[in-house]
Amino acid sequence: MSFLIGMDIGGTNIVCGLVDEGGKLISKIKQPTEAHMGSGYVFDKISRMIQELLQTAQVESKDVAAIGVGTPGFIDPVRGITVFASNLQWTQVPTAEEIGKRTDIPTFIDNDVRMYVYGEAVAGAAKGYEHVLGITIGTGLAAAVVNNGELYYGGRYMAGELGHIPMPEIPYTCGCGLQGCLETLVSATGIARQAREQLEAGRASIMNDWLNGDPVDRITSADVSKAYDEGDPLAVEIMNHTGKLLGKGLAYAVSLYSPDIIVIGGGAALAGERLFAPMREQLQRSVYKGYWERLTIAPAQMIDDAGIVGSALAAGRRLKELRGEAV
Amino acid sequence: MSFLIGMDIGGTNIVCGLVDEGGKLISKIKQPTEAHMGSGYVFDKISRMIQELLQTAQVESKDVAAIGVGTPGFIDPVRGITVFASNLQWTQVPTAEEIGKRTDIPTFIDNDVRMYVYGEAVAGAAKGYEHVLGITIGTGLAAAVVNNGELYYGGRYMAGELGHIPMPEIPYTCGCGLQGCLETLVSATGIARQAREQLEAGRASIMNDWLNGDPVDRITSADVSKAYDEGDPLAVEIMNHTGKLLGKGLAYAVSLYSPDIIVIGGGAALAGERLFAPMREQLQRSVYKGYWERLTIAPAQMIDDAGIVGSALAAGRRLKELRGEAV
Repeated sequence: MSFLIGMDIGGTNIVCGLVDEGGKLISKIKQPTEAHMGSGYVFDKISRMIQELLQTAQVESKDVAAIGVGTPGFIDPVRGITVFASNLQWTQVPTAEEIGKRTDIPTFIDNDVRMYVYGEAVAGAAKGYEHVLGITIGTGLAAAVVNNGELYYGGRYMAGELGHIPMPEIPYTCGCGLQGCLETLVSATGIARQAREQLEAGRASIMNDWLNGDPVDRITSADVSKAYDEGDPLAVEIMNHTGKLLGKGLAYAVSLYSPDIIVIGGGAALAGERLFAPMREQLQRSVYKGYWERLTIAPAQMIDDAGIVGSALAAGRRLKELRGEAV
Repeated sequence: MSFLIGMDIGGTNIVCGLVDEGGKLISKIKQPTEAHMGSGYVFDKISRMIQELLQTAQVESKDVAAIGVGTPGFIDPVRGITVFASNLQWTQVPTAEEIGKRTDIPTFIDNDVRMYVYGEAVAGAAKGYEHVLGITIGTGLAAAVVNNGELYYGGRYMAGELGHIPMPEIPYTCGCGLQGCLETLVSATGIARQAREQLEAGRASIMNDWLNGDPVDRITSADVSKAYDEGDPLAVEIMNHTGKLLGKGLAYAVSLYSPDIIVIGGGAALAGERLFAPMREQLQRSVYKGYWERLTIAPAQMIDDAGIVGSALAAGRRLKELRGEAV
């Protein structure tokens, strides 16, 4: 029996999972990243996590075909390098090589959103669909495309920056330097930001009661969902506005990529229909009906595990490709 | 020596060319399509055009490896069917089979814009670039993507509808039923339309002198270019506005596809810098600098021949794929 290891190195936590060749997650462990300790420290920790994972599952290292790693930021999957990951403070880190030499297992890396979407495409909500567009709405907004099991990369592996499409309706400046990027509004951060701004401007809302005099910074996107469920007009307005702008952005992606299904994941996607209903309404109005009529829209299925399973299966596939085997 | 035939079936003309395996156009002939006579009539004409083409070049039919055909509209390249082409009035026409049985040469079809961009990507302005976005600005606006020599299709072969992205600045209703589609303004038709509207509204312009009392319908996009060169403020305004909107639309395509180069062709692209200068200015302002810094923007090189050469080379490639040969 051959196994794969999938890993998600985030700004806060590292999650590491053992996966069978069919994509079934057998067990996983989680530890804080402690990126401030430097990349060497993080790689040593990863090496110990893998040992622990194998020991617990009573699997020998030689039975693991490959390790797949998802990290945030700009990745060069071919050279195995994390080119730039702001929340890890990594620049030009040879992630694949560092993990490979500590474990003696072939290691592949890729962008975490691509791995998440790959997981959902081959083993999650989009399994069985040929043309998959996946997005994650978390701290930011990002997208990836999988056609017939193959990831779409574009030049410098930089395709899919749905979050950095400028929208005339958005007044915020983005960290990337552009004005009005979609992710400054359509994200957990963006939803919270809208609520905070309105509360600070003196807008009536049940969220004021919850704050009980605390600074508005305490308000999160989950609070907006909660207020929405209580019928709070401000929360309803924010969700409608955010969903509508997401629908506009997705219209561009649908007209350019022509997906069969859109899978939506990430923390803020937990808002579910509060966000999806206005998104769908706008999207239908903004794309040619030939796209809309055959489009499925589904929430992510594997949620927290999509990145791990995706990384593991993508690594298995890349190993086979390298060996010239059919994929 | 083995040859390929490339063909472009347009609403007005059919152009048919003999191409060598390296993509060199040896000779071509052109005849009116006469689509109103029905598809059978058109296919018989095509068969005679191919005979004439081979006779003139003294090439035998058996030395032609494949025929590639580009037609407008929605195409199913795998089944060889023109699903719907409005300007040919064709619905579900088995184009590949009809030409194949008349010529006894393996025939492949595809969308005309994809074939144009494929030609520019493998043998024209984008030769040597890995990730190519090509657009044609003609009666409409369309795009296609070629990555490492491979066309990007998306679900139902419908990717690349840049012309049907809705823009809040555009007041026109599109033939597709949507409001504000980019191609209603960024196209030869759209440029002429803006000029006609302004002239009809009594706007001063050198174009009024040219009309000399004739109805404004006579004004074309070429007239707007001509007026621009005379420093006509209205023409300058129209080109700036059109270029700016093209830049905004291309920003979406760049952020989602991440091309290394954008090739711009089609009739209205002859406006050249009049359109490209404001487009570049807007595009730079609307995309993350990591895209802009490595982006080349180039006019199409083969102009009228890109579609023929592209169709021919794409057909050659697909024949090899079918035979399991390396491409």
